[in-house]
Amino acid sequence: MEIGVNGIWTILGAILVLFMQCGFIMLEAGSTRMKNAGHVAGKTIFTVGIVSLVFWAVGYALIFGSKGGSLIGWGDYFGFDLKTVPEGSNVAPTVMFLFQLAFAAISMSVAWGGFAERAKLSAYLIFAVLFSVVVYPVIAHWIWGGGWLAEHGKQDFAGSTVVHLTGAMAAFAATLLLKPRTGKYNKNGTPNEIPGHNQVFTTLGVMILWVGWFGFNAGSTITVGDGSFFGFVAVNTQLGAAAGAVAALLIAWMFTGKADLSVMLNGALAGLVAITASCAFVESWAAIVIGLVAGIVVVISMRTFEKLRVDDPIYALSAHGTAGVWGTLSNGLFATPELAEKVGVGKAGLFYGGGFEQLGVQALGVVACGAFAFAVSYLILFVMKKTMGIRVTEEEELIGLDLSEHGSYGYPEQMKAVQH
Amino acid sequence: MEIGVNGIWTILGAILVLFMQCGFIMLEAGSTRMKNAGHVAGKTIFTVGIVSLVFWAVGYALIFGSKGGSLIGWGDYFGFDLKTVPEGSNVAPTVMFLFQLAFAAISMSVAWGGFAERAKLSAYLIFAVLFSVVVYPVIAHWIWGGGWLAEHGKQDFAGSTVVHLTGAMAAFAATLLLKPRTGKYNKNGTPNEIPGHNQVFTTLGVMILWVGWFGFNAGSTITVGDGSFFGFVAVNTQLGAAAGAVAALLIAWMFTGKADLSVMLNGALAGLVAITASCAFVESWAAIVIGLVAGIVVVISMRTFEKLRVDDPIYALSAHGTAGVWGTLSNGLFATPELAEKVGVGKAGLFYGGGFEQLGVQALGVVACGAFAFAVSYLILFVMKKTMGIRVTEEEELIGLDLSEHGSYGYPEQMKAVQH
Amino acid sequence: MEIGVNGIWTILGAILVLFMQCGFIMLEAGSTRMKNAGHVAGKTIFTVGIVSLVFWAVGYALIFGSKGGSLIGWGDYFGFDLKTVPEGSNVAPTVMFLFQLAFAAISMSVAWGGFAERAKLSAYLIFAVLFSVVVYPVIAHWIWGGGWLAEHGKQDFAGSTVVHLTGAMAAFAATLLLKPRTGKYNKNGTPNEIPGHNQVFTTLGVMILWVGWFGFNAGSTITVGDGSFFGFVAVNTQLGAAAGAVAALLIAWMFTGKADLSVMLNGALAGLVAITASCAFVESWAAIVIGLVAGIVVVISMRTFEKLRVDDPIYALSAHGTAGVWGTLSNGLFATPELAEKVGVGKAGLFYGGGFEQLGVQALGVVACGAFAFAVSYLILFVMKKTMGIRVTEEEELIGLDLSEHGSYGYPEQMKAVQH
Repeated sequence: MEIGVNGIWTILGAILVLFMQCGFIMLEAGSTRMKNAGHVAGKTIFTVGIVSLVFWAVGYALIFGSKGGSLIGWGDYFGFDLKTVPEGSNVAPTVMFLFQLAFAAISMSVAWGGFAERAKLSAYLIFAVLFSVVVYPVIAHWIWGGGWLAEHGKQDFAGSTVVHLTGAMAAFAATLLLKPRTGKYNKNGTPNEIPGHNQVFTTLGVMILWVGWFGFNAGSTITVGDGSFFGFVAVNTQLGAAAGAVAALLIAWMFTGKADLSVMLNGALAGLVAITASCAFVESWAAIVIGLVAGIVVVISMRTFEKLRVDDPIYALSAHGTAGVWGTLSNGLFATPELAEKVGVGKAGLFYGGGFEQLGVQALGVVACGAFAFAVSYLILFVMKKTMGIRVTEEEELIGLDLSEHGSYGYPEQMKAVQH
Repeated sequence: MEIGVNGIWTILGAILVLFMQCGFIMLEAGSTRMKNAGHVAGKTIFTVGIVSLVFWAVGYALIFGSKGGSLIGWGDYFGFDLKTVPEGSNVAPTVMFLFQLAFAAISMSVAWGGFAERAKLSAYLIFAVLFSVVVYPVIAHWIWGGGWLAEHGKQDFAGSTVVHLTGAMAAFAATLLLKPRTGKYNKNGTPNEIPGHNQVFTTLGVMILWVGWFGFNAGSTITVGDGSFFGFVAVNTQLGAAAGAVAALLIAWMFTGKADLSVMLNGALAGLVAITASCAFVESWAAIVIGLVAGIVVVISMRTFEKLRVDDPIYALSAHGTAGVWGTLSNGLFATPELAEKVGVGKAGLFYGGGFEQLGVQALGVVACGAFAFAVSYLILFVMKKTMGIRVTEEEELIGLDLSEHGSYGYPEQMKAVQH
Repeated sequence: MEIGVNGIWTILGAILVLFMQCGFIMLEAGSTRMKNAGHVAGKTIFTVGIVSLVFWAVGYALIFGSKGGSLIGWGDYFGFDLKTVPEGSNVAPTVMFLFQLAFAAISMSVAWGGFAERAKLSAYLIFAVLFSVVVYPVIAHWIWGGGWLAEHGKQDFAGSTVVHLTGAMAAFAATLLLKPRTGKYNKNGTPNEIPGHNQVFTTLGVMILWVGWFGFNAGSTITVGDGSFFGFVAVNTQLGAAAGAVAALLIAWMFTGKADLSVMLNGALAGLVAITASCAFVESWAAIVIGLVAGIVVVISMRTFEKLRVDDPIYALSAHGTAGVWGTLSNGLFATPELAEKVGVGKAGLFYGGGFEQLGVQALGVVACGAFAFAVSYLILFVMKKTMGIRVTEEEELIGLDLSEHGSYGYPEQMKAVQH
């Protein structure tokens, strides 16, 4: 019975995490321009498709394959024998597979932020395959598959590093190699704002992500037990998101006099990303602090990247990257001894008598995973750039990817009115 | 094991109720104009943030705090000791906390209906804090926290009064103090229609609310038991919503010759709001009757408020207020003795031999809660109006809150075409 | 306890299937034109209402009524005695009722695809009642209610035939009787493209349907058991959808040089529809094959119907009809002996030593159900056409159904800009 109950909880988690793709569709489409909206939305569907097929074929095996070592999983390809439930399992392998697949697809969707409004459709197809084979599974194995970082005690409850930082580093590599969108920067280097075309979409996207995140974080408890701990994780998640949203709104308002909505929405996301590593490790007051800091840090990060001429249309680097780093490190600050004992592989954080040890391990994880994800993504995209090309022509970019890559506008009637 | 199973059900309920915020985002944005759409959508995110933080700090304690009395809860602030599961609990406190937090946030979102398209952003921030401290928790304590109305046998299964009427009364206070939107009424007092800008958004919003309502109503069983009663509550919810939608559509069609979509959508909402109090207390045929009456009453209410020069852009007063009153009273008419015994603190309704006693208690609850929520909300907003001001200038209103409060249009490209 | 656990799973399934209506709202609204958007979206709400009330009154009884025979169920009208849980039940009748109601509403929404952009509102109301009484329950009884096709061993796990083919056949009857939309075909018979107005809506709709489909397919296990088999069904569902999306995208790209988004989205839907019959009967590799074939077949079907002058605005005939046929037949090809034994009423498929027997039964089911659903729908609509009329006037069609049937545009502000 218990494995069945855990199964309901974990499959609900998987469904919620897949539902987050609806959030990415709306967040990304809303944050970009009308001429690219169909493309930006639609690519989510087939890239989820690609990631799913690849994950079934090899991805899951590379993370959890029974013949693996410290660096990579091995064996058990092609969904091998998912139907057998090993003695003593907390949850059935079929359910765990779907849950992990959903996480891999989120990391992919985070990465697409760096590609937006200028990458070729073919680049999406090919990078989706390669990212799902040689980037994501490696990091996931290191931390969740019993790899070397797990052995060192790196703690990342639901993936501030594994999912968000990894995706953001791929986005970073992409945005560097693709170069900024036409018109983003003036000749003197000053940035222009290229506002997204639909803030209702963006807002809906963020709220869907927020709701789906309960599958992400609380779902990662896998076990239900006495029905209390997953609630605790969920409460911390809610508080982290809340604090991030409020902090970012107030910061933006205080410093610019206008309550920028895009900043506030990224504050909510940053709170969610940051609390992801620590939601099961910290007291609720600490969840609020982590969210507040994330909401502030994300604003600084957005401004900094923009000044550095890194064009990141959907702020993946800040909301998922910077906040992912902060969330991972926060575990080394706020993890309590009891919770580290209960759910972790490491130790208590700096503020709970753990000294700098756990903080150091968390920092090592950030550096190692960030560097690996960035370097491999950069290498793949660099080779793709030199061979097939990854960016559409300037003319194609100007008329928009809907027309140039897909043959029809996403908003055929409204585009006429807009172009009038 | 049982507490774990109940925990899954209740946390699913909490997630569904939080998902209803996606519905409010779309319903409210779709029901207002393009120039305010980003603002209307986006304010949902940070107000959910504020309510969450306040609820954690004091709101939950004011409802359920162990040192409370008949009028208010007390003690147990700052999420105190949520992790301890008391002996004999049906559900873990962490899960119950999140579930209750989600309800508080819904009541807040209902209230915003009365603020739409003319309130200052700062008014949202400050009222969100105060409503979450001195309005919602008081009503919730009276009925659900063991307060004086619970002692009198007031029955409100999932919050027709606690959540919907309370929110609607705050909306009423706001719309009276804010005055109608510029252009809503002509000098001779006749109303102009100010149609919302996107009925697809509005429709999606209502359907999301409908789906989320299963968490609201069926989730309020908390316990799963033999897996039958929560299904019964869900069936009644579905039938109430269905009857409300069909009744409102037919009424509008018969009397105006056009099947007004906004009316039909509010009929579905009114059916949902009305069945909320009674869903666990009545037979399914009665759920249909309650929904049908709600669908008719909401249309009359919408027309009446408009004639009375009460400008309620998202029809919160009718769909949540009037329907909330009807739903609360319907419990005193249709509650069966068996179900009142099983889940209630009161008695059977008028049509089941209960005489006028339960109906009287329900009416008392409506009057007391309605008056309290209105009076306190009015007082707060009156003081805010006299000190900081709660309405944007006429110029700001004309250019729209997206630009005046947030510094950029929600639809930058489309606004150009519209303004052409 | 077990019945409670199964109840949570099945009610979650019911909620997810009702959530699919949000997907239909966005898919259908996005696939049609701006002037009809409010109508197309809004009619979903009241038709779900109608189906719910009819299903409660008679629909459920006609499928599962205890006095029924091979052709139709009988007895147990008006939600009779749902509250009693019979000894030995896997799941409570209240929950099962809601689950089945949600399926009936999906079949209805599939059918509306054939009505889009030209049917009168009154036609929706009346056909919703009749379809829910004399079409859907008959097919559902034949296959799921112990009717003659069940006796013959017809296997349809979650409704490729019952839900999707039935709905598509009603759509087929409607589109034949309504005739193509004005402007769809030139005098020489060549088709014009009438693109939908919002691909972001369409994409969101498909992703919502995808997510909701876990309730549809995995929810149809009803029992949780050791928490493994529902996960297996869910994995097959995910793989079928993924393969359908990827196959359709690649086919479209190869043959037209443009990666048509509408085709890709219909590929995902076709994969989902096709795997619905077989998700519990086949190995995961076969799920991928079924999805791939569905993704190819749907493209051919879309082109073929268009050439045959069948105007099917939302591609219901292809995505639900053709893919539904393929999915039903695929069960007769790929069903394994173990899984047919475990969950089926029939035998293994052709490729697993079952010979042509099961394939024949599946084909019989397609022909019998397809013919019945088409013939009865055609007869109903033919009588309606001759008596009350089912199509709006050409003038009404040209100004759009929002204005002609509902009295106001779905996008009042944007329509001004578009019409400029």
